[in-house]
Amino acid sequence: MNLKRIKGTLTQFNQIGYSENGMNRLAYTVDELRAKKLFMSICEKEGMTVRVDDCGNIIARREGTNPALPPVAMGSHLDTVIDGGQYDGTVGVVAGIEVIRCLNDRNLQTKHPIEVICFTAEESSRFGVATIGSKAMAGKLFKEKIGSLKDRNDITFQEAFKRAGFDFDMIENASKNPGDFNAFFEMHIEQGPVLEKKGKKIGIVTGIAAPTRIKVTLEGKASHSGTTPMDLRRDAFLGAAELGLIVERAAKSEADKGTVATVGDCTIRPGAMNVVPGRAEVKIDIRGIDGDSKQRVWVNIMEGLDDIEHRRHLMTRTEIMMDDQPVPLKKEVISSLLDTCRKLGLSCIQMPSGAGHDAMNMASLCPTGLIFIPCRDGLSHHKDEFAALEDIGVGILLLEEEVLKWATLDHGRMDQAAMGEKSHESL
Amino acid sequence: MNLKRIKGTLTQFNQIGYSENGMNRLAYTVDELRAKKLFMSICEKEGMTVRVDDCGNIIARREGTNPALPPVAMGSHLDTVIDGGQYDGTVGVVAGIEVIRCLNDRNLQTKHPIEVICFTAEESSRFGVATIGSKAMAGKLFKEKIGSLKDRNDITFQEAFKRAGFDFDMIENASKNPGDFNAFFEMHIEQGPVLEKKGKKIGIVTGIAAPTRIKVTLEGKASHSGTTPMDLRRDAFLGAAELGLIVERAAKSEADKGTVATVGDCTIRPGAMNVVPGRAEVKIDIRGIDGDSKQRVWVNIMEGLDDIEHRRHLMTRTEIMMDDQPVPLKKEVISSLLDTCRKLGLSCIQMPSGAGHDAMNMASLCPTGLIFIPCRDGLSHHKDEFAALEDIGVGILLLEEEVLKWATLDHGRMDQAAMGEKSHESL
Repeated sequence: MNLKRIKGTLTQFNQIGYSENGMNRLAYTVDELRAKKLFMSICEKEGMTVRVDDCGNIIARREGTNPALPPVAMGSHLDTVIDGGQYDGTVGVVAGIEVIRCLNDRNLQTKHPIEVICFTAEESSRFGVATIGSKAMAGKLFKEKIGSLKDRNDITFQEAFKRAGFDFDMIENASKNPGDFNAFFEMHIEQGPVLEKKGKKIGIVTGIAAPTRIKVTLEGKASHSGTTPMDLRRDAFLGAAELGLIVERAAKSEADKGTVATVGDCTIRPGAMNVVPGRAEVKIDIRGIDGDSKQRVWVNIMEGLDDIEHRRHLMTRTEIMMDDQPVPLKKEVISSLLDTCRKLGLSCIQMPSGAGHDAMNMASLCPTGLIFIPCRDGLSHHKDEFAALEDIGVGILLLEEEVLKWATLDHGRMDQAAMGEKSHESL
Repeated sequence: MNLKRIKGTLTQFNQIGYSENGMNRLAYTVDELRAKKLFMSICEKEGMTVRVDDCGNIIARREGTNPALPPVAMGSHLDTVIDGGQYDGTVGVVAGIEVIRCLNDRNLQTKHPIEVICFTAEESSRFGVATIGSKAMAGKLFKEKIGSLKDRNDITFQEAFKRAGFDFDMIENASKNPGDFNAFFEMHIEQGPVLEKKGKKIGIVTGIAAPTRIKVTLEGKASHSGTTPMDLRRDAFLGAAELGLIVERAAKSEADKGTVATVGDCTIRPGAMNVVPGRAEVKIDIRGIDGDSKQRVWVNIMEGLDDIEHRRHLMTRTEIMMDDQPVPLKKEVISSLLDTCRKLGLSCIQMPSGAGHDAMNMASLCPTGLIFIPCRDGLSHHKDEFAALEDIGVGILLLEEEVLKWATLDHGRMDQAAMGEKSHESL
């Protein structure tokens, strides 16, 4: 593994869509396409065969000694949010390339083919839907649901897809079947503060949290802030304030399950200094990998809301905007990754992923692992997003070792595999 | 007292600046000027002498048998907020006219002259400053402070004043001296729900609350709502929520002093469903007629904020936007009004005024009384603002009796005064 080479490749990708405000390679734009073309040309130089599927995912294949076996795949995405960072997604694609280069350096052959996948349109920033490419691969993307979605310039998904050179009628053909992959591994920055706080370099993800999103409207009565006595008020903001604190308390009581809940926005009407708030709209986001725990948080919040409604004489309305199911990752994959960490002497923790990733879709096709590396200050989706090169290197070490385990080295070349282990020491 | 006549006069004024969305007679606009001209012509028809002072206040005088005595004044305003109601201010001007008409009907002479004042620009809606006319009369309006204030069309006060036909250089000449009035009385709708809730027709105002307005900014840290564990968050909204509840608690503990406190607005940044709020801005309004009580509320809030700051690892910044002193009304006037209510058999309560009124400026010139009548549902500054004609009539009864008391009937006409009392029964 070569840190200088890793850095070089990362820089190559981040010259595309760079600006002072951050990276901009939105899904199906010219800059995402340019980044994917760079990925293709790099992979071809490494002797891989490259194909583009009907959704725009790029799949680069290093043949195995038994081409009939299902491939072991690695990958992530090259698209970014608006004014995003240089590591989210990109680092996982670069990791895949580096693993292939290491195998090539040492001329290792694996029984199973190895594929590096660059998923398209992982970020929801353009069309409001995330992990489009991996959804398509997992057979979870439906034409009628996605075709008419619009970006902020009123361009429909269907139109953008066509402009990018694809045939919308064929998009569902990108789907694969269970068994088409032997395993899938993604390496990604944590996008949170846990690894850094705990001083660990590796997070083995146990499951991917799914958001439940709820909009609560509290209706009280707008009245004059000077002439309405405290006991005659129906103040919607105070109801929203209590609700926010209940959301926090409910999630904290499920801390051992890793469930979190947030009021990300609260808007007040009329919102004037001299008027008791008549209306408040609160947006709640509950996430966790334990469905029962999420459910308990939800029930606690609703009970609290009921109490607020009666005690403060408010009318409340609740609208569930999203209620996705968490994706647990297979115990056999988690154990295998933990073993590999032990073998390599890497200190790691098990943790849930609070954000969605392509791995959550791939998990419906094959045993899937998700490896987190630290990012500075938990910051992501921002121009200052940063992961240390050394930490990226450690993640790639684990990824390489794990992929080799699932791809199994060809017996005739065990001496070279032993040589390969030596190269880890060069880190 | 004639309810039909009162209704007719009210309707005459409310034909000026009427729209489906409410009344619009903003300060120094053509429609305020038209309303003031109507007031002048009505007063002249009632045999009064009318003059306009250097700020645009109209003063109509019914001469006393001893013109050297200081007049007893009544009055309110005819300007409105944007899309305002038909009673706020107007009802007080109409009440003054009706008292004069009643005296004329019965041909009563008073020793002191009686004046009806139509104050200009009571509402802050155009230039952000309230009670401009009565401030000028009380010598509290300063050219250098007001001249460059702009309305929403970027017209300065100075320019608007000139367009209305006045000389800005002369505006401070509107000021009067203590002793220039024997007493001042204003009748006004309550603009709050207390009288209605308590089933009372008259509120005798004990003092006029002054607002203290504070902007508190809480800075935490914006982070991903899915990947940031509950115990690593610095959530600015939750700090704001606790602050809001502390504001409520602090005011409730001063309920016996009539102090109220409100968070009228709270804005959150970035305000996205999937981001822990990094920043919240809270606007607090504290009002009361007891300065010590207001101070205790303020101290309680600041202590609470201190605790929030430390416990939640937030940075807070506090900015005092306004800190006015309450205006207590003289005990002798309150007692006199209570006596008059008893004499007339009116059930009344003593109460603070949460909103500002012209009476608060007049209180620095002479003994001043403020009489509240109920308005439906406490609603004001709104097209649906409503006060029952019968309730307006009851208020005028009290106003007339009280004004006569301070203006003292001329001895030679006591028989007619006795006749006058009969007319109260016609209500």
